[in-house]
Amino acid sequence: MSRRMKLILAYDGREFAGWQSQRHRETIQDEVERAFQKICGQPVRVHGAGRTDAGVHALGQCAHVDLAEEKFSCERWLNALNAVLPPTIRLLRCSFVPENFHARLSAKGKVYRYRIWSAPVLPPLEYGRAWHIAAPLNMAKVKEAVELFVGRHDFAGFAANRGQKEKTTVRTINSVRLQRRDACLTIQFDGDGFLYKMVRLMVGAIAQCALGKVSLDEIRNRLNSPRLGDHRLVAPAEGLFLVRVRY
Amino acid sequence: MSRRMKLILAYDGREFAGWQSQRHRETIQDEVERAFQKICGQPVRVHGAGRTDAGVHALGQCAHVDLAEEKFSCERWLNALNAVLPPTIRLLRCSFVPENFHARLSAKGKVYRYRIWSAPVLPPLEYGRAWHIAAPLNMAKVKEAVELFVGRHDFAGFAANRGQKEKTTVRTINSVRLQRRDACLTIQFDGDGFLYKMVRLMVGAIAQCALGKVSLDEIRNRLNSPRLGDHRLVAPAEGLFLVRVRY
Repeated sequence: MSRRMKLILAYDGREFAGWQSQRHRETIQDEVERAFQKICGQPVRVHGAGRTDAGVHALGQCAHVDLAEEKFSCERWLNALNAVLPPTIRLLRCSFVPENFHARLSAKGKVYRYRIWSAPVLPPLEYGRAWHIAAPLNMAKVKEAVELFVGRHDFAGFAANRGQKEKTTVRTINSVRLQRRDACLTIQFDGDGFLYKMVRLMVGAIAQCALGKVSLDEIRNRLNSPRLGDHRLVAPAEGLFLVRVRY
Repeated sequence: MSRRMKLILAYDGREFAGWQSQRHRETIQDEVERAFQKICGQPVRVHGAGRTDAGVHALGQCAHVDLAEEKFSCERWLNALNAVLPPTIRLLRCSFVPENFHARLSAKGKVYRYRIWSAPVLPPLEYGRAWHIAAPLNMAKVKEAVELFVGRHDFAGFAANRGQKEKTTVRTINSVRLQRRDACLTIQFDGDGFLYKMVRLMVGAIAQCALGKVSLDEIRNRLNSPRLGDHRLVAPAEGLFLVRVRY
């Protein structure tokens, strides 16, 4: 009888071509599957809660695996996997879960954080970990724009391919937390689900609004009439962090 | 008539083989000299306040250059240099200074910071930016050990090659600031000067003391009788940050 294990993973997205397995490119899923194979001696499929794009970081991605045998305790799995994973991917926690737990299907929501570095110069140690915007941001506009996204909306105007692959493009953003510490602006979204590139398109719109290139009304209209909205800006991957998956 | 310019630089040390020019290896000095040459069309020598080893980071390294002509304002120099430097090296500030200013010889002191990650797992985004110590540290011992270094001492026991290349191995540590935020322990040293690898040898001793491998008396003896001291541990480069040079 196999046993299902839940994994909480963190990674530096700069080093990989995203979460999902791809031909000829190093992905996080590949690395984790390779780590299990080294320990188990046979292929193990890792099911992530969702994909993250190339360059996107995770502080708490979730995944599950089915293990053929009860080889180790969780603590030993943690040490064994971290011993073979590259240092840019870490298993933070793992636990055995019932068979009906599924990393993607059981997810109730996700928390994403986006970091903007608002200053003339991006410090070298922030390179690859924030979106550098050299021009000054109107913080009052940021606050107003952020609030527009809270609640239940049709986010087709804030999805890659307008969310055409989805059954519905309606999602609920439970809360958005804004924090500014010196040059670093952090916008954290807690939602029941996110369409493809939705956070980066929301942040792109917030930044354009703060730079005076898009009005609050344009954002409002794009939320109500999602087929509208030209001049959409996708904020770069390197500022995005998957904070946690809620179950 | 040439004009002297003072530079304040930050860099991610992981990307380079240290500050000082070397054959066949990429160093920070090389990169900065290449950036000046691209703009000036002729070789420019960059004089740093001191070397940093491969892997050591800088939040505020200082250097000076002599420019053949008053080509640009400081603001334009800042933008021009950052446009050609790699993103892992940034010029933070620059200013014209009198000819008697010398980045190394005029320095009155330096501030170094060392970061230790004290937890079973090192988060991927801390990789290369902290010394990972998985075993628990005795924080009371850390506090006591740190205090031993404050003041005027012969630091030969805490220098690579026992400081044999130096006229004197006596240095003054003005203050040591200790900060613990969750897993991250930061030790910041403000001193009138530092011998080669001195910070990393002090931190190595502090860590050994906190792990119960070296006693406070052994550290005390190594400070008073600097020829003594076996089992010296050099803390790894990646936890070390040159914070600023004082003039």
